[in-house]
Amino acid sequence: MSENTAEQLATKQRDISVAEFFERNRHLLGFDNKRKALLTVVKEAVDNAIDACEEAKKLPEINIQIIDMGNDRYRIIIEDNGPGIVKKQIPNIFAKLLYGSKFHTMKQARGQQGIGISAAVLYAQLTTGRPAKIWSKISIGKPAHYYELHIDTQSNKPEILKDEETEWKEDTGVKIELDIEANYQKGDQSVDSYLKQTAIANPHVTIIYTNPKAEQFIFARASEQLPKEPTEIKPHPYGVEIGILIKMLKATEARTIQSFLTNEFSRVGAGTAKEICDKAGLFTNMKPKDLQLPHVEKLIEGIKSTKIIAPSTDCITPIGDQLLEAGLRKEIPAEFYISVSRSPTVYKGIPFVIETALAYGGDQPGDKTVRLLRFANRVPLLYQQGSCASTKAVTQTNWRSYGLSQSQNSLPVGSLTIVVSLVSVWPPFTSEAKEAIAHYDEIIKEMKLALQEAGRKLGAYVNKKRKIAVQQERVSIFENYIPEVASALSNLSGIGKQNIQEAMKSMLEKNKEYIQAHKESHKVEKTEKQDKEDQIKLGGFDE
Amino acid sequence: MSENTAEQLATKQRDISVAEFFERNRHLLGFDNKRKALLTVVKEAVDNAIDACEEAKKLPEINIQIIDMGNDRYRIIIEDNGPGIVKKQIPNIFAKLLYGSKFHTMKQARGQQGIGISAAVLYAQLTTGRPAKIWSKISIGKPAHYYELHIDTQSNKPEILKDEETEWKEDTGVKIELDIEANYQKGDQSVDSYLKQTAIANPHVTIIYTNPKAEQFIFARASEQLPKEPTEIKPHPYGVEIGILIKMLKATEARTIQSFLTNEFSRVGAGTAKEICDKAGLFTNMKPKDLQLPHVEKLIEGIKSTKIIAPSTDCITPIGDQLLEAGLRKEIPAEFYISVSRSPTVYKGIPFVIETALAYGGDQPGDKTVRLLRFANRVPLLYQQGSCASTKAVTQTNWRSYGLSQSQNSLPVGSLTIVVSLVSVWPPFTSEAKEAIAHYDEIIKEMKLALQEAGRKLGAYVNKKRKIAVQQERVSIFENYIPEVASALSNLSGIGKQNIQEAMKSMLEKNKEYIQAHKESHKVEKTEKQDKEDQIKLGGFDE
Repeated sequence: MSENTAEQLATKQRDISVAEFFERNRHLLGFDNKRKALLTVVKEAVDNAIDACEEAKKLPEINIQIIDMGNDRYRIIIEDNGPGIVKKQIPNIFAKLLYGSKFHTMKQARGQQGIGISAAVLYAQLTTGRPAKIWSKISIGKPAHYYELHIDTQSNKPEILKDEETEWKEDTGVKIELDIEANYQKGDQSVDSYLKQTAIANPHVTIIYTNPKAEQFIFARASEQLPKEPTEIKPHPYGVEIGILIKMLKATEARTIQSFLTNEFSRVGAGTAKEICDKAGLFTNMKPKDLQLPHVEKLIEGIKSTKIIAPSTDCITPIGDQLLEAGLRKEIPAEFYISVSRSPTVYKGIPFVIETALAYGGDQPGDKTVRLLRFANRVPLLYQQGSCASTKAVTQTNWRSYGLSQSQNSLPVGSLTIVVSLVSVWPPFTSEAKEAIAHYDEIIKEMKLALQEAGRKLGAYVNKKRKIAVQQERVSIFENYIPEVASALSNLSGIGKQNIQEAMKSMLEKNKEYIQAHKESHKVEKTEKQDKEDQIKLGGFDE
Repeated sequence: MSENTAEQLATKQRDISVAEFFERNRHLLGFDNKRKALLTVVKEAVDNAIDACEEAKKLPEINIQIIDMGNDRYRIIIEDNGPGIVKKQIPNIFAKLLYGSKFHTMKQARGQQGIGISAAVLYAQLTTGRPAKIWSKISIGKPAHYYELHIDTQSNKPEILKDEETEWKEDTGVKIELDIEANYQKGDQSVDSYLKQTAIANPHVTIIYTNPKAEQFIFARASEQLPKEPTEIKPHPYGVEIGILIKMLKATEARTIQSFLTNEFSRVGAGTAKEICDKAGLFTNMKPKDLQLPHVEKLIEGIKSTKIIAPSTDCITPIGDQLLEAGLRKEIPAEFYISVSRSPTVYKGIPFVIETALAYGGDQPGDKTVRLLRFANRVPLLYQQGSCASTKAVTQTNWRSYGLSQSQNSLPVGSLTIVVSLVSVWPPFTSEAKEAIAHYDEIIKEMKLALQEAGRKLGAYVNKKRKIAVQQERVSIFENYIPEVASALSNLSGIGKQNIQEAMKSMLEKNKEYIQAHKESHKVEKTEKQDKEDQIKLGGFDE
């Protein structure tokens, strides 16, 4: 009977297509509800469009239109001025999950896994039955291609409903049109907010957005400069796991471990490779394919105990502390700004950079939880704040010592906006929907260091502000008592009350000047990045 | 140049294997850190083992052994007494992602997506390079099969390192041995805690567990009864989306919509099918393959506007309020227990049942956040509490009206343990790691209704308890003043003080009896499910 059971069970075993898997688990891809679905579709298309423009070295201009078709249906049209997509690739890129150009290259990009836009097509098909409509033009003289696509979920392959040549605009580019079941609502987690934050973190992008209320917003580019192009890199030896190393050793064309190490990894020269082999107790001229598990284990130990310089900075393009601060100034009116850009470091062999910025005071409410803006590779993260590494880093930072109030394991309370930005060749997200950064210790540590650095400067400002306020209060109290004190002193000393009173006033005046000087020099600090001119005006008042 | 760019970009486009995808995104599968990795590996193996035993109608006996091998490496050995796995299927089941028997059947099970155990094998390979070792025996008279397996991640196919017949125990079953990088720690999110909670929600399972400290725990089964076997069902028409409907219409062998509706869906008889067609304005004898998108849209409208009875209960096997309460009593010593089992309902055409239980008072701290125990298909969920639908349901329930304190959008504070359990043919998880239930409105609504039902009973108890306490205090204050009041009354009335005092005491005595009676009848309520006998003892004290 038992054998029968095993045999019976065996008959039910079969392959599951990744498209079927995500069809049923759409919430994993950001399609949990109608409102979020609208954001996810726009996000996937816009991220791809900006990536494509940057790869083609064109300043991106993205046109987004959302039309309310009633009955919870929306038409989303997104058009870019990028290089276009060659005909042959269109069906796979838009109607096959796990297909793309970015997964196998270690290079900073918004997209990564070859799922996003096909998932949007899948969602449209599921909720309205309508195909995705794609226009692509790759050359100015030639016609454009027009496709209507479905996904055959059982095979995870594109199903082509229409395939035509068509006339379409002068320039090159891609346009996608999707009908989906959705819900449009303004607010922190809206498409409007996503596009605004995208404009902040991407000052080289022009976004023209028409929302379902037919309101048009134009976020014009503030910079004509494309971000420095991120370069593709090889993995860094630190953090490379044994399973990956075994795979690399099998696949390599190198003939010796020495050349394997120098060719397949970044930051490993001949000397470092030799040191790794020495520490591993392996000959540098061993053939990679001859290495057995115990050898590979030793090699890992060798890597761990060798000092190897951090990965190269130019493979990633952070926003930059100046631009980050400028973006924040544009968005959040406040009285004190600070930004910090950390040096690159690695998690699991993958380089990343953490940047943070703070905006303190101004009209921000002092009795509410601080506002946290999160970015990954310049893409705003609007959902899953609670699960994000940046939230953990903020809650684990002691903001009390920087003058804010904070309960244990909570976001601090105060008139503060905190920006935490990660750029990496491979940001680790907690889900395919790419809404939150996973809790890697290395990442949380870097975030905390960045926040502490910014926090200390904030603390100095807040404390000084508090000290000045206290001093000012003392002076004004003293001022009120001058007549009484003066007549008492006059009685005791015989000096004329008027003289004493004047001497005291003049003393107080100096004190006030001193406080003012503190306040002004303070101002200088808070606008560090302004012209020297301002400082000259205030030159006389040294602390 | 642009064309070149499009062409250049095209050359980089390629397929991504699902194994490569998860190799890099292992945190999606519950391998975020070493401690969680240990739990995830045990969980995937134990869940599969219990599923297999239940399918073979054998009372499960699961043996788990974790050996600390030093240097953050652990050997995990899990053995069951299930039906075993036929030789041919072993490699695919353990070393191929998205392969399994449960995805395509609508039937309640712990496993669902054909990823879990292969992901554990992948994690072992990544972190220690060691293959998975599998023993399987499907028949008492015959030898067992022994495999050593890796996953070829580039192709997502098993790589067989060893394939032998071997002698292994008398009975049938499966044993898996994995060496992984991990970390063992006790506490709420530990393997120990997971197994303890598993025993609570699965009283028919015996678990023998040896932890890395070589401590052995035996959770002996409390029930010799296997849970009623869940049956496989067809989808319910409510919540079936248009994309799925189109797919079903294409695939069906039915010749008319009438027979399509009655054959492919549950709870649709001839009458209901006719009503759906009438409301959709379609002829019942149309051929499914002739339906165009506008017809399918009408069919969806027809389904929505037809009253169809809820899906059958017997496809899912809830824990049951009695067993749930018994489990809770075993785990949490408290003074008041209540459990609620809701009727089945549907989300997206998929039936589910919500059950909840509360344990109030006892030694539980009154000034801390309540303890929340979450289950999905009898599997304890230990991570991602913040992202779970059950957490949202608890925070959105107004616990103040049930006598607890609670800040807005927070878990309540008080000496309370809350159990929320979901059973479904397809529980929607927020991630492949299956740690939290996704925020589907229908699910949250059911959870809130269950919590409110339990909460009202809790509120009645808490309020009555409070009222009795107040009354008791009044009585004891009055008692203290009896001598004074008695002498005053004696002075006024001329009656002897002694007499008055005795009359008052006797009055008070009656009052005390009354309070006691309330307390006792109260006790009856709190142990509703105890024998009548107890009630007879207290029979005299009616309210």
